[in-house]
Amino acid sequence: MGVSSPPVLRVAIVGAGFMGKMHAHAWRTAHRFFSLDAIPEIAVLVGRDAARTADAAREFGALAASTDWREVVARADIDVVDICTPGDTHAEITLAALAAGKHVLCEKPLATSVVDAERMVVAAAAAPDLVAMCGFSYRRTPALSLARELVTAGRLGEIRHVRAQYLQDWLSDPDAPFTWRLDRERAGSGTLGDIGAHSIDTAQWLSGERITAVSALTRTFVTDRPELTEQVGLGGRAVQGASRRDVTVDDAAAFTATFAGGAIGVFEATRMATGRRNANRIEINGSRGSISFDFERLNELEFYDATDPAGEQGFRRIQVTEPEHPYAAARWPAGHGLGYEHGFTHQIVDFVRAITAGTKPSPSFAEAAQVQRVLAAVEDSAARGSIMTAVEGAPS
Amino acid sequence: MGVSSPPVLRVAIVGAGFMGKMHAHAWRTAHRFFSLDAIPEIAVLVGRDAARTADAAREFGALAASTDWREVVARADIDVVDICTPGDTHAEITLAALAAGKHVLCEKPLATSVVDAERMVVAAAAAPDLVAMCGFSYRRTPALSLARELVTAGRLGEIRHVRAQYLQDWLSDPDAPFTWRLDRERAGSGTLGDIGAHSIDTAQWLSGERITAVSALTRTFVTDRPELTEQVGLGGRAVQGASRRDVTVDDAAAFTATFAGGAIGVFEATRMATGRRNANRIEINGSRGSISFDFERLNELEFYDATDPAGEQGFRRIQVTEPEHPYAAARWPAGHGLGYEHGFTHQIVDFVRAITAGTKPSPSFAEAAQVQRVLAAVEDSAARGSIMTAVEGAPS
Amino acid sequence: MGVSSPPVLRVAIVGAGFMGKMHAHAWRTAHRFFSLDAIPEIAVLVGRDAARTADAAREFGALAASTDWREVVARADIDVVDICTPGDTHAEITLAALAAGKHVLCEKPLATSVVDAERMVVAAAAAPDLVAMCGFSYRRTPALSLARELVTAGRLGEIRHVRAQYLQDWLSDPDAPFTWRLDRERAGSGTLGDIGAHSIDTAQWLSGERITAVSALTRTFVTDRPELTEQVGLGGRAVQGASRRDVTVDDAAAFTATFAGGAIGVFEATRMATGRRNANRIEINGSRGSISFDFERLNELEFYDATDPAGEQGFRRIQVTEPEHPYAAARWPAGHGLGYEHGFTHQIVDFVRAITAGTKPSPSFAEAAQVQRVLAAVEDSAARGSIMTAVEGAPS
Amino acid sequence: MGVSSPPVLRVAIVGAGFMGKMHAHAWRTAHRFFSLDAIPEIAVLVGRDAARTADAAREFGALAASTDWREVVARADIDVVDICTPGDTHAEITLAALAAGKHVLCEKPLATSVVDAERMVVAAAAAPDLVAMCGFSYRRTPALSLARELVTAGRLGEIRHVRAQYLQDWLSDPDAPFTWRLDRERAGSGTLGDIGAHSIDTAQWLSGERITAVSALTRTFVTDRPELTEQVGLGGRAVQGASRRDVTVDDAAAFTATFAGGAIGVFEATRMATGRRNANRIEINGSRGSISFDFERLNELEFYDATDPAGEQGFRRIQVTEPEHPYAAARWPAGHGLGYEHGFTHQIVDFVRAITAGTKPSPSFAEAAQVQRVLAAVEDSAARGSIMTAVEGAPS
Repeated sequence: MGVSSPPVLRVAIVGAGFMGKMHAHAWRTAHRFFSLDAIPEIAVLVGRDAARTADAAREFGALAASTDWREVVARADIDVVDICTPGDTHAEITLAALAAGKHVLCEKPLATSVVDAERMVVAAAAAPDLVAMCGFSYRRTPALSLARELVTAGRLGEIRHVRAQYLQDWLSDPDAPFTWRLDRERAGSGTLGDIGAHSIDTAQWLSGERITAVSALTRTFVTDRPELTEQVGLGGRAVQGASRRDVTVDDAAAFTATFAGGAIGVFEATRMATGRRNANRIEINGSRGSISFDFERLNELEFYDATDPAGEQGFRRIQVTEPEHPYAAARWPAGHGLGYEHGFTHQIVDFVRAITAGTKPSPSFAEAAQVQRVLAAVEDSAARGSIMTAVEGAPS
Repeated sequence: MGVSSPPVLRVAIVGAGFMGKMHAHAWRTAHRFFSLDAIPEIAVLVGRDAARTADAAREFGALAASTDWREVVARADIDVVDICTPGDTHAEITLAALAAGKHVLCEKPLATSVVDAERMVVAAAAAPDLVAMCGFSYRRTPALSLARELVTAGRLGEIRHVRAQYLQDWLSDPDAPFTWRLDRERAGSGTLGDIGAHSIDTAQWLSGERITAVSALTRTFVTDRPELTEQVGLGGRAVQGASRRDVTVDDAAAFTATFAGGAIGVFEATRMATGRRNANRIEINGSRGSISFDFERLNELEFYDATDPAGEQGFRRIQVTEPEHPYAAARWPAGHGLGYEHGFTHQIVDFVRAITAGTKPSPSFAEAAQVQRVLAAVEDSAARGSIMTAVEGAPS
Repeated sequence: MGVSSPPVLRVAIVGAGFMGKMHAHAWRTAHRFFSLDAIPEIAVLVGRDAARTADAAREFGALAASTDWREVVARADIDVVDICTPGDTHAEITLAALAAGKHVLCEKPLATSVVDAERMVVAAAAAPDLVAMCGFSYRRTPALSLARELVTAGRLGEIRHVRAQYLQDWLSDPDAPFTWRLDRERAGSGTLGDIGAHSIDTAQWLSGERITAVSALTRTFVTDRPELTEQVGLGGRAVQGASRRDVTVDDAAAFTATFAGGAIGVFEATRMATGRRNANRIEINGSRGSISFDFERLNELEFYDATDPAGEQGFRRIQVTEPEHPYAAARWPAGHGLGYEHGFTHQIVDFVRAITAGTKPSPSFAEAAQVQRVLAAVEDSAARGSIMTAVEGAPS
Repeated sequence: MGVSSPPVLRVAIVGAGFMGKMHAHAWRTAHRFFSLDAIPEIAVLVGRDAARTADAAREFGALAASTDWREVVARADIDVVDICTPGDTHAEITLAALAAGKHVLCEKPLATSVVDAERMVVAAAAAPDLVAMCGFSYRRTPALSLARELVTAGRLGEIRHVRAQYLQDWLSDPDAPFTWRLDRERAGSGTLGDIGAHSIDTAQWLSGERITAVSALTRTFVTDRPELTEQVGLGGRAVQGASRRDVTVDDAAAFTATFAGGAIGVFEATRMATGRRNANRIEINGSRGSISFDFERLNELEFYDATDPAGEQGFRRIQVTEPEHPYAAARWPAGHGLGYEHGFTHQIVDFVRAITAGTKPSPSFAEAAQVQRVLAAVEDSAARGSIMTAVEGAPS
């Protein structure tokens, strides 16, 4: 990483919103619980508004603030660029950072188009000494990491079914306000790209198989929403204005899929599943066993082993909080559950370790670009009457 | 029903297998727990093998046995014909029974083709004094009956999502033996028609909306299976032979759907979901609330009311065993769960009450034929690259 | 059973209330699903009111009705006396029935005093050719039968903890009406004897260990309740009168216990656990594993096997509906849940089989009398400041 | 707090073990997510071994290390003393810290004797300008905070039942090694004081009622355990020696209790509940509703509202991750679960806010001393044959 001594890793976080805040927490926390060969330091936080970014830098524990990502990315004293901005800016920032010799951690989805994603893959391949990773952080929930171990060890046998749902409900109310996530220009896609992308990544990663084709349906149930004016009201909060703005992305997406290994998949992503706050669920059925997971109970993995004796078979509720479990050993006593932020912390642990070990962490940009190709195929299929549509570049 | 006094309802059950046994239990039991204006009597059981049918008649509590359904259906002393045979015989028996002036209860799926189903609808319409009903018995699980009441009362608001899965695993083992259910000639279709049909019926009935189009994928994972020879082994059980026979139906089906009212649906039916014994699940999300059900916990309905105060919202686990609940009042104390067979008993209760009251019970043949049309559209779509395929006769 | 041919078993049910109804269902149903060497017939139903008993006899499927249990018990054509009356009458009827040479199935609790229970034990011992059994029917819920098999096979190792709760809420409302179950004269005790007795029986039977001493607390939260007048109101229902009547039994009981084998137990029974309809729960922890059960999910047994590999350990949710499971083979397909009444049916199956095989079924009167001694010790301890009180006759 | 500007709060953490680590994380994190009027800084970490403490100081983010708590506590530049040592040292350090004018956060249990606890109460009362708080951090799990709000708002009505279990299994294996927690001299008591104390605190705090008397049973199932030698083995880990050491505390405790308001309680704490990792559970039943919680699913509160319409009643699974919920607003999006450490972070938030606002936070030393009195009564009752034993100083 350029600096050999002292082992400090200087990080620039680009994006001062919610995701930047989560990443900052992870950068501050990783070395407090895990043994790392380089100690991260949040050298600078980059945002759009100078005053707000300065406040956020103090809040996040960044040493400095900036509104000029280009200048920051070019600075010699920065080792890592961590990109937490909306998807339409990912490609440009990433390309600049890699060109400047920085390691890059880029939030998902990797880009808002396959073309951009592939440019990023090419740039990463052209910089073999740099670590480039995409932030599908759910993978590093210990329960899902354990699921991956079980699949990899052959405990599920031949995989036949992948069943993934990502159910939220924060848009269920037709008067929930417009946000940038509902604007195709900025977000690339809607529910599909925001949360469906997680399901796609998890499904391919867990099963170890790429999606080869999809048949999809998308829907926008609420086609316009009230726009919040930015003015600050009496209570210090934004006030809802009278105007409504068109929603230009999907509220929900559903698709069936075929996998390279012969399995079939059923996917659903929605922000209109009333009562489901963050039900990021996946179940995989194989000839020898099954796993089932729901992020609403993130410390649990359900595992069914068909080789258990008849009469004693059943889904085991494994509390993934034991010393034997992924990421758990470094932390606290058995049975004491982890929260949402731990996926981010584990992500930083693995990212930093890849840098110091000179290895290539997963999800690589290539893996993330494959997710992008599936997203594109989903949109394509939905636009063409749900016809089964091959994922570009996927093995036939 | 023709007989005014004494109020006995003479029933012929056609089909001496498992389903005939379940129906017989229901016919024997309904008037023991519910007040009925006619008392059923199982006058005759019809099967294919004389000796076996005679044994079954004793076991099921039928007064007589027969191997000639045509003769039985024509008998003057029979009021009701209850058809529990494989699907390919439903149309012929039903038409004969209606022609002979008998009330008909026909197991699902109504037929093995849309053409047959529609002939049955026509025949039922031509006999306005007779009761004709299709045996989608899951509807009469009290938890699903309660769900229907909630939807009908508007408690879910505008319906947006229907999410139905019927997951079994008895074919997960590639060496599970061949049965008639895997033979297209006899069963009509595979998992789709056997259990997917339940999901389709439940989805349309609960939501109150017809499915207008589907995009489907079907799959046969295990294409041949060992055939059991019919000879009786030492232990009195069938012995598995050396030959294997081709599976000519689907092992699994998955499809997305659009509903007349604007909702979208995701359906999955499989007998290969390792670890899931009989997970007949449905969830419906609307603008005001949601319901969720899993037959593996058949006495529970999950209900989410979005009008509950913020901070107190959550899915309520309603134990549908209270005096206020459908079918429960006539039975036993609160909290004492019901089993699978009660759906059948409730079906008989409603069927008999319709006969004595001169009303038309649901599911009518017309409703069941609509299920058949959806099944046909699913198969059609699956055969044509999953293209979104309109359900014949459905409102556009 | 005296009659050798034809193999009909003539049963007299004494008690025409809810419990008599459940037993009648079981007598009618057992031979329909299980192979029995004698076929039960409900020869007569005995109640207190002639007209009501005649109605009930028709409803229950009894061939005749009577108001004179003494006459019935003495009849030569009766093989079995099935006692479903309140507890204060059990001893007298049982003694008469055994003296008349009848097999006896007696509802729990066996009696309302230890003295009476022991007289019944003596009488049963004096009639070695007769079958005498007490109706702790929950034992025959397949999930609990499976639990017993696991414990007996040593799968739990050394047992350390027994944790049993029986939680209901039908008295939670202070204006819920008075019933005979709240009258010490008729019921013997309150919640303790009615439902706590089940927990005691299940705990001793599952663990295979007797309770040696208890430290108890009982409480009556609502000390008087409105009395229903028996007059029929406009709607045909009983009308609540203005008078209130003293509750002379406990609403709730809680006690700790020691077991002969070294385990400790914690028991709680209440009818005031708002929201819990029939949560008959038990968990047992041993050095090698644990089991956990809740009747609100009666088809499931949770089993934890501490010998599973570290990292894969977890409570397995076994759906006790498979061919390998107790009582399940004779019934219907895997995964199709059973209800409350099946425990009664299974009880009849085992009772009839004991008669035809000449064996002694469990729970014997001796086992039931041991439950009675524990109940007495609980009441004794509660009356003496919760001091740890030895169970009479228990091994020290 | 003495310092008005700049608003930095200088903290000394005494205790460099697991609990010190958790507190350090909370001190570092609280102001990153919550608005505080003083910014904590971990000025010094105090441990017993100089080298290890220096390492831990770096790991925990402390500015300095020390092995002399007396010196540290007396330093003028320390504002807060945070005591994370074993219970037998709490009183001495607390008294010194209060005498030196420091705010004190003391881990639970407050002390190892009632006498010591009461000395601490007196000392805190004599320093009205200082904040003294005991670290029953589970209270600040948002789900339990919400439960408290519901009880306080009268949503449960008259409270009748408290049912608390704290089930762990890390001592289930008889060869699990000896630790200081099994030594009465250092730990004061065993399971009872370590985890039973949490249940007692939660029960009294949630119900708003003091425990007035208890009837208790304790048990040590495994009376000696292998002792780990402190020498470092090849792998850098402690090696288990051949000797065994006597366990001088309880493995399990069970007791019934009476509350001042008329409720009864059943408590159980054990480290031998095979399969239960950290099942810190509590259920409270009142005349109008119930709440139920299990730390194994720490983001959920089950709430039953008996005023819901009949037929729609059921326990609601509230995901306590919404903006309306305690502590949740400052954090991340709805539905994204929290972990074990958040209780500690919230504890620091409330502790710091009490300091800057000049208020008295809960749990006060007086509340914690009441827990100590209950613990003493439990041990007393267990020693005297479980006789119901009044809690010293409790209202009669």
